[in-house]
Amino acid sequence: MLSTMQDVPLQIRRIMEHGLNRHSTATVDTAEPGGLRTSTFAEIGAGAARLAHALKELGTGDGDRVATFMWNNAEHLEVYLAAPSMGAVLHPLNIRLPGDQVVFIANHAEDTVVVVDNSLLPLFAPLLPRMETVRHVIVNGPGELDAPEGVTVHDYATLLEGRPATYDWPDLDERQAAAMCYTSGTTGDPKGVVYSHRSIYLHTLSLVAPDVFDLSFRDKVLAIVPQFHVLSWGLPYAAFLTGCSLSMPDRFLTPEPLAGFVKASRPNKGAGVPTVWQGLLGYVKATPDADISSLTSAVIGGSACPPVLMDAYDEMGITLLHAWGMTEMSPLGSLARPPRGADADAVRAHRLTQGRFIASVESRLIGPDGSVLPNDGASVGELEVRGPWITASYYRADDPEKFHDGWLRTGDVGHISPDGYLTLTDRAKDVIKSGGEWISSVELENHLMAHPAVAEAAVVGVPDEKWGERPLAAVVLRPGMTADYAELRDFLGGEIARWQLPERWTTVPEIPKTSVGKFDKKVIRNQAAQGLLDIKKI
Amino acid sequence: MLSTMQDVPLQIRRIMEHGLNRHSTATVDTAEPGGLRTSTFAEIGAGAARLAHALKELGTGDGDRVATFMWNNAEHLEVYLAAPSMGAVLHPLNIRLPGDQVVFIANHAEDTVVVVDNSLLPLFAPLLPRMETVRHVIVNGPGELDAPEGVTVHDYATLLEGRPATYDWPDLDERQAAAMCYTSGTTGDPKGVVYSHRSIYLHTLSLVAPDVFDLSFRDKVLAIVPQFHVLSWGLPYAAFLTGCSLSMPDRFLTPEPLAGFVKASRPNKGAGVPTVWQGLLGYVKATPDADISSLTSAVIGGSACPPVLMDAYDEMGITLLHAWGMTEMSPLGSLARPPRGADADAVRAHRLTQGRFIASVESRLIGPDGSVLPNDGASVGELEVRGPWITASYYRADDPEKFHDGWLRTGDVGHISPDGYLTLTDRAKDVIKSGGEWISSVELENHLMAHPAVAEAAVVGVPDEKWGERPLAAVVLRPGMTADYAELRDFLGGEIARWQLPERWTTVPEIPKTSVGKFDKKVIRNQAAQGLLDIKKI
Repeated sequence: MLSTMQDVPLQIRRIMEHGLNRHSTATVDTAEPGGLRTSTFAEIGAGAARLAHALKELGTGDGDRVATFMWNNAEHLEVYLAAPSMGAVLHPLNIRLPGDQVVFIANHAEDTVVVVDNSLLPLFAPLLPRMETVRHVIVNGPGELDAPEGVTVHDYATLLEGRPATYDWPDLDERQAAAMCYTSGTTGDPKGVVYSHRSIYLHTLSLVAPDVFDLSFRDKVLAIVPQFHVLSWGLPYAAFLTGCSLSMPDRFLTPEPLAGFVKASRPNKGAGVPTVWQGLLGYVKATPDADISSLTSAVIGGSACPPVLMDAYDEMGITLLHAWGMTEMSPLGSLARPPRGADADAVRAHRLTQGRFIASVESRLIGPDGSVLPNDGASVGELEVRGPWITASYYRADDPEKFHDGWLRTGDVGHISPDGYLTLTDRAKDVIKSGGEWISSVELENHLMAHPAVAEAAVVGVPDEKWGERPLAAVVLRPGMTADYAELRDFLGGEIARWQLPERWTTVPEIPKTSVGKFDKKVIRNQAAQGLLDIKKI
Repeated sequence: MLSTMQDVPLQIRRIMEHGLNRHSTATVDTAEPGGLRTSTFAEIGAGAARLAHALKELGTGDGDRVATFMWNNAEHLEVYLAAPSMGAVLHPLNIRLPGDQVVFIANHAEDTVVVVDNSLLPLFAPLLPRMETVRHVIVNGPGELDAPEGVTVHDYATLLEGRPATYDWPDLDERQAAAMCYTSGTTGDPKGVVYSHRSIYLHTLSLVAPDVFDLSFRDKVLAIVPQFHVLSWGLPYAAFLTGCSLSMPDRFLTPEPLAGFVKASRPNKGAGVPTVWQGLLGYVKATPDADISSLTSAVIGGSACPPVLMDAYDEMGITLLHAWGMTEMSPLGSLARPPRGADADAVRAHRLTQGRFIASVESRLIGPDGSVLPNDGASVGELEVRGPWITASYYRADDPEKFHDGWLRTGDVGHISPDGYLTLTDRAKDVIKSGGEWISSVELENHLMAHPAVAEAAVVGVPDEKWGERPLAAVVLRPGMTADYAELRDFLGGEIARWQLPERWTTVPEIPKTSVGKFDKKVIRNQAAQGLLDIKKI
């Protein structure tokens, strides 16, 4: 039996129209040198329509990829609205990736048009000649760019000038591609995820809920998280869906100009990665006339939130809310608001988890033997997720290991409490598989680094005839200290189950790190395999 | 270009599973004589699974209608979850309708099973023999019911006993029917609206938003609006989607027991029609030990909210939020929260409108000449709506006049402000069409009733050779007063445009009313047409 309901496809166009028809006076502040400029939703909607007319004239058709190489600003928002609404595919390029990767991604996605901020031309210009499918570059703001053969360069404002402020947006299949982002995996080529109108619409509806980002037309949100990073966690679309105003910092992400922008724009909520909040904190503490008092809460994600950062913001009356997600998840999976009736200790403990899964995100933990583990807050397994805004594959790239019976393998290991709070403990590749059980390398490392003689420590799995794998502890000693492995082992024994304690120990001058400063355990594993480490067994 | 997203259908089953997997300790309080009983979501989920097993054994298949004849309580919630999740169609019967209509509706929907509260058996028993397709009746609570031939009567608790607490819920097409409700139109037969899994899922996601019902797992919501009235405005599903707890008043809707239930269950939010809030207010004011202080806000809908009621609740620290919708709209269309930055006068003015349209509900105003009117806060037209939870037709009933190019004609007339606030002024059938313009009968009536000589007044359109229609004012004078029509006309002239003032006047002993106390203008129109009224033209 079918329903009698209307068949209205979920489309980004409708999110835009809602913002325009109900919230035309909501605003977007874009940071500028020493100040800001304010655009209304009505102006941004008109800009999106003009851009769509221009893109159409440039030959942009259904499904064509329209890339951006931009900061967070009003014009970037216009591309966010115009490209998907007209049937094209929005593709924000990550300006922070190495040039070779940007070029690889633009070619792999077959981007046809790129909209570039003039402030990013020095970064973009050397890459353009290697972008094989780009035919048009639209520069936002005054600037010079040499066009390679076959490429036409346009000025954003000039291109839009005189065009109609409305556009006859088409009805589209809601499963059609609307936008795409590439993961910046540390191994292998970057891989693309293609979001649909449907997935973005559902993600947006879910993002605004009181237990998630809690967005209302009474809010103004500081979008620190870049628009080139998983669609700014969905904030641009959430703004048009709810009518909340936005504060867009453009390129002013260092503490001083960012603090000045917050003081001028006065957002009450925010979203960004820990490092930016950390930088802002230091500046505000040291600067008497800094004023970020308009902020009441901010979502923090991208990496774990240091407790000390959370405490420092608490003292300023700003609640940091820890969220977890992935590019493959649009990105939102969970967000850490404490449960009803929690006491102060429980509030803090819950706020430091990866958070509670939000509705429409299903989860399961897969144990070392492949079985589904209970959500008992103790059983540790690899996390798999499922839901309408989670990817089922990568764009034109085969990676069957990332998928499992229709679920996405997150590559994260952790446990889930009976009331749905997720705690991640390891990356799956760093877990040590010992006799059908898992040992958390991160847990061992954290406890080891609490020992006064230890400056740094990394634990990796090494092959073991009897157990399959066993932990090898690599420690960096503090100056003047000597290694007493038995003592370190006893020290661990106070916290860790006996069967998980490492028998193999080595001392290294430093722990190898990746370009973003994370432990590069792959290097240690290779050194051990090649017999380059002086390993003692105790 | 298609997206890479997973294809996960939107199903009520997933809403239920989210509630069970993340919020199993959230609660449902059901009012009982002199107290309440508390069920956890886990218990309700287990009940739903047991009920699904039982229904399957009774022969309930895909698309079969499972009706309820129940108050708001935990068992009713179990039927809400079990029936749609197993692929059947939930059909709550409105216990307040005349018996003949209940029978018509049950036969028209071809209900196969009815779950009945034992407290409603006296009302239900005489109707059952006339329900032609019902094969099983399940009685919730101890009670006796004579079974007509071909009908088997079961006890709810006994039927569920010993069955598994989990069920292998099927994957379904999200456009499949999940639930149905009938409108209780004052003219013609009741008409059915069939909601899909998709429409309910999207309505639920939208309902919980901060600008709509604002529901969180930190809330406990008093669901006064009956589950037999447009699915209790979606609260049962919103509870499982967010983890908010529910307070279900069962049959205890009169002020004294309801106040006692609020005192015992301590909800912080609520939803219901004005009359119940009115009754509760009177009781609380008159009863020193009444305590409804746990409440902070409540959604009020179903009919316009009297300003005096809103003010009285404001004084108690309880914000009443006016919402507007229709059975045909699942029901939610708009909700009146004031815009950002409004001053006290603007706050009050906005709170007394029908509210701001919520995302996914599109609107347009159609003027007397069929053109689409602007949302300028002044242009008055008939409201048409469109969206994924709005009906495109009635179930097995042809009513082309209610639909217009894929839009639902609401039958309401009003205006919309540039920022999306809806103000309804008339029912379309009561508007007076004069020379291609519309005159609001309700506006004329309200102003007339402000005159000290007038006890009641109704204004209807009567045929006019030159203008098509012109207003006829029928007034009821206060005792001892005489009619001076010219004076009444001048009195109106202070507020109403000259061309809208009635030339035709009559005095009647009382205004005819419908069974629910509304002015029955059809009767006055007929009396005028038949020359039964003493009409003076001035």
